[in-house]
Amino acid sequence: MKIAVLGTGEVGHTLATRLAGLGHQVTMGSRSADNPAAKEWAAANAAAHGTFADAAADAELVVNATGGLVSLAALTAAGAENLRGKVVVDVSNPLDFSEGFPPKIATPDGVSVAEQLQRAFPEARVVKTLNTMNNAVMVAPGRVPGHHNVFLSGDDADAKSTVSELLQSFGWAADQIIDLGDVTSARATEQLTGLWVRLYGVLGTGDFNFGIVR
Amino acid sequence: MKIAVLGTGEVGHTLATRLAGLGHQVTMGSRSADNPAAKEWAAANAAAHGTFADAAADAELVVNATGGLVSLAALTAAGAENLRGKVVVDVSNPLDFSEGFPPKIATPDGVSVAEQLQRAFPEARVVKTLNTMNNAVMVAPGRVPGHHNVFLSGDDADAKSTVSELLQSFGWAADQIIDLGDVTSARATEQLTGLWVRLYGVLGTGDFNFGIVR
Repeated sequence: MKIAVLGTGEVGHTLATRLAGLGHQVTMGSRSADNPAAKEWAAANAAAHGTFADAAADAELVVNATGGLVSLAALTAAGAENLRGKVVVDVSNPLDFSEGFPPKIATPDGVSVAEQLQRAFPEARVVKTLNTMNNAVMVAPGRVPGHHNVFLSGDDADAKSTVSELLQSFGWAADQIIDLGDVTSARATEQLTGLWVRLYGVLGTGDFNFGIVR
Repeated sequence: MKIAVLGTGEVGHTLATRLAGLGHQVTMGSRSADNPAAKEWAAANAAAHGTFADAAADAELVVNATGGLVSLAALTAAGAENLRGKVVVDVSNPLDFSEGFPPKIATPDGVSVAEQLQRAFPEARVVKTLNTMNNAVMVAPGRVPGHHNVFLSGDDADAKSTVSELLQSFGWAADQIIDLGDVTSARATEQLTGLWVRLYGVLGTGDFNFGIVR
């Protein structure tokens, strides 16, 4: 599949590398066409890079791996016409560390980033997922042994199926994937990030995940 | 121990009953001295009831089982002089359903209820706990099989030890109890409530809990 990964940080890097390794044709998108991190990644992975718009234009599926506080700007730069009808996998979190620790979950009036993106780009098919864990665990769930989960939120059932298949290609078992419902349920997982940050401090490792036990 | 349980709702009822069953001398506190639910509970459990202030005055430990949106008012009614030096176990959540579903986590500027209480009553020793699960699971963790967790947040280490012992008397194993840190870490668990509500909808039962898997 032709996939755009928007974002050149650790999360974007990890997802882009995993997707390229699975044989997808990946373009890493960033604010500028000559982003050094994107250029370096593309050279190392025999893949492409470009602006947000370049990456999204060619893609069948778009991964938003930008920071949650700048995601709306990044997708605006990608362009509504380049997102139309496409699955947008949103893995971002709106953590604001500007006032130090603990960070705030900075969502205006409690509305999640995923909802903001879906409202701004009504013809895109936004699916929130993977935002409740470290990027290493996202693409290799076996790093954490035992029963733990990944969540899906989105309005489009077909888009969620596509993303579920993508997750399974990463190594997630079908019974680890919990569909929380429509895009408003992304609030629940974005708000979970605060607990993740605390647990990271307590446990001293990012190799953990949340399991729903019943 | 002499324990005040503030709140006559389902959570207060469950905790008060469990604590009385363990041999504690429990007083259920409510806004008015003649609350019918408190009166009925006290009669059925050979226990006491009274105003928030009545209950707190006599207690060695105070449980805040009022709704998170009214907790500050309830503890104000209980009286700073009746909370001084005491462990205040805060199990509340600031869920606001006034605009329907999904509820909002209604904390001003992201500051948790536990922090608000600790700030308002600096001589009380606030410990946030048990707010991440159904009340039935709070007092009988064995309802959920396998590995799952309960969290502690608070500034006073001795107070957290006291609460940890209380949790263990409910059936929690020591290794299920995770100390997240100071009282600001209560933000993390109060924000988790949104995910709990969603999972309740998806799973159709409150007999589940969060497990931290590593």
